[in-house]
Amino acid sequence: MDVRDASSMRSFAAEKMRKVNLFETERFFCDIYCFEPGQEQKAHAHEGSDKVYFVLEGTGLFQVGEDERRLGPHQATLAEAGTEHGVRNPGPDRLVVLTYMAPKPS
Amino acid sequence: MDVRDASSMRSFAAEKMRKVNLFETERFFCDIYCFEPGQEQKAHAHEGSDKVYFVLEGTGLFQVGEDERRLGPHQATLAEAGTEHGVRNPGPDRLVVLTYMAPKPS
Repeated sequence: MDVRDASSMRSFAAEKMRKVNLFETERFFCDIYCFEPGQEQKAHAHEGSDKVYFVLEGTGLFQVGEDERRLGPHQATLAEAGTEHGVRNPGPDRLVVLTYMAPKPS
Repeated sequence: MDVRDASSMRSFAAEKMRKVNLFETERFFCDIYCFEPGQEQKAHAHEGSDKVYFVLEGTGLFQVGEDERRLGPHQATLAEAGTEHGVRNPGPDRLVVLTYMAPKPS
């Protein structure tokens, strides 16, 4: 039985946000995205794959399409396939986001 | 922009565990499963769909295949397509589990 502990696997880097994979199959991936204050994932889009952002720790500014919202612990948003989306950590705390995408982009 | 707050959407029922949907597309669904002490989701399997359990609150006994493990907050496990899986809340606290499945079973 594969078990992952997101709290112990969270990992940060001074250069840029870090992605840590928890699980991956041909049907999806599930990562934790770890942001130091000021770090971001620039807005981008995936054709054919949906992404869910679920905040585990801290507060992030999430962009989906034209909208931007500040989300905190246990708040989530969906970027459907083809929709621009990105995240920025305005600080002062670290930001950890559970990120799920289906299917895994090829 | 669709935002869901899992903390405010969690909902329990005396009769049985409750599933609350956060997001759903043709490619996946994302629910929170809410268990009072003693409640369970009996072991079952899905052909062609992978499921991730991610504990948000409390402690659960998770079965995947032949294995059973006790998982607490921010611990996760994967039931790949075709693998038996289930959850039980041994108590004494409530259990809330973020659950992803891809693709959504038809």
